[in-house]
Amino acid sequence: MTDFEYETELQVRFRDLDAMGHVNNAVYATYLEQARVDYYADVLGVGLDDIDTVLVNLEIDYRHEVVLDDETVTIAMGVRSIGESSVVVGYEVRAGDRVAATAETTQVYVDPDEGGSRPLPEAWVEKMESLR
Amino acid sequence: MTDFEYETELQVRFRDLDAMGHVNNAVYATYLEQARVDYYADVLGVGLDDIDTVLVNLEIDYRHEVVLDDETVTIAMGVRSIGESSVVVGYEVRAGDRVAATAETTQVYVDPDEGGSRPLPEAWVEKMESLR
Amino acid sequence: MTDFEYETELQVRFRDLDAMGHVNNAVYATYLEQARVDYYADVLGVGLDDIDTVLVNLEIDYRHEVVLDDETVTIAMGVRSIGESSVVVGYEVRAGDRVAATAETTQVYVDPDEGGSRPLPEAWVEKMESLR
Amino acid sequence: MTDFEYETELQVRFRDLDAMGHVNNAVYATYLEQARVDYYADVLGVGLDDIDTVLVNLEIDYRHEVVLDDETVTIAMGVRSIGESSVVVGYEVRAGDRVAATAETTQVYVDPDEGGSRPLPEAWVEKMESLR
Repeated sequence: MTDFEYETELQVRFRDLDAMGHVNNAVYATYLEQARVDYYADVLGVGLDDIDTVLVNLEIDYRHEVVLDDETVTIAMGVRSIGESSVVVGYEVRAGDRVAATAETTQVYVDPDEGGSRPLPEAWVEKMESLR
Repeated sequence: MTDFEYETELQVRFRDLDAMGHVNNAVYATYLEQARVDYYADVLGVGLDDIDTVLVNLEIDYRHEVVLDDETVTIAMGVRSIGESSVVVGYEVRAGDRVAATAETTQVYVDPDEGGSRPLPEAWVEKMESLR
Repeated sequence: MTDFEYETELQVRFRDLDAMGHVNNAVYATYLEQARVDYYADVLGVGLDDIDTVLVNLEIDYRHEVVLDDETVTIAMGVRSIGESSVVVGYEVRAGDRVAATAETTQVYVDPDEGGSRPLPEAWVEKMESLR
Repeated sequence: MTDFEYETELQVRFRDLDAMGHVNNAVYATYLEQARVDYYADVLGVGLDDIDTVLVNLEIDYRHEVVLDDETVTIAMGVRSIGESSVVVGYEVRAGDRVAATAETTQVYVDPDEGGSRPLPEAWVEKMESLR
């Protein structure tokens, strides 16, 4: 058993650094977002136009800095719980052999026209469950 | 008594939006960061070169979207607790008359050369306490 | 006569800096973009949803660095020429009493559905001309 | 003979898109910058700390949009001319089988302490010439 059933590797850009010379704290949120986009495409087979989920909570624990020499980070993702209309996801941001950060996000599936939440598509739930 | 003893107003940029047409989730972290930079300059009288603090934890609750028509957001900040070498800060991100998000961060004061944590400067603690 | 008929003041953010400690070159393009958005709203009375123009050319001459202590930059804009479906705009990026950069962009008015260029709205041309 | 002696492949991120749903114009400048960083490392063997060059001119011709489905862009780079203390570089930004943009930049080699320009290192010139 593994806690993270999906991984994606992202390039670290010079522009991700801030004046302190390491990857800026907000960019970690961008890395997590890109991991979700990759997961939606790879696991759920869902393109961006059909991703009607919104982020409602984000928590990041920063443990080690990421620098340009790391070249890439690996984002490991694991679905933590699946609710009626929401999903909680856990993450590790890995750079080299270090865990640079751990994180957790909650997304809610929404009706793009009405705005309110709605039940997660059954096909999504099945694919998410099958990978766990 | 107010929960937030400091406020700063930030311009919303077109570049802050993402393909969903609202301010991207990671940009909220940038707004919080800018509020801290403003607080350091305005309250602590500390320039960027002397800000030897690192972010160790970030949590954001997203409540309402921010759009370009909001033009600005107001970030309200309040010191929640002051430890030996760390500070916990609470935030409200306000757009118009809505609370777009609440957030909390923990910063640790570090030795820029050695890397480890060190006690917060007394002058900082006094200024932070005096404003609460 | 002035070369720049419109000005807007933008906040410099910590996140605009790169590892060199000054505002990153790409962020100048974001500043120019925001100036255009402000001009569209203030001069043309056009919201983002109706800005059916695309950038086809961008040139920036970088003269001086912008640092966080500058706090704001002023973007001065002047329409250089108005064609059938395109507009050329000149810019100065000012920080303190220095010209940090000069720039020029060309935008083309497009049909959002068909994709091709189309004549600029007469009302826009009149407003742009009246300000020059 | 080829006009571009170096290529690097960059990931397109969701955060690179703007509210129009395509890669924002300023992000092209970030792609070019990352291509230079990759070139410095791969061709010149120079780490970021030793890159004492500043961008003095940037010109981009935007030809086609880049979208998230492109997944990556390839940046092709070719040194156009080598001066006493400056280098002119040409670029193609390729997405799929399209040329999304062409660009040209001028960098000047500077003294990090004094600030003025200084002659390019001979070893750099030799490596740049050998690849052309």
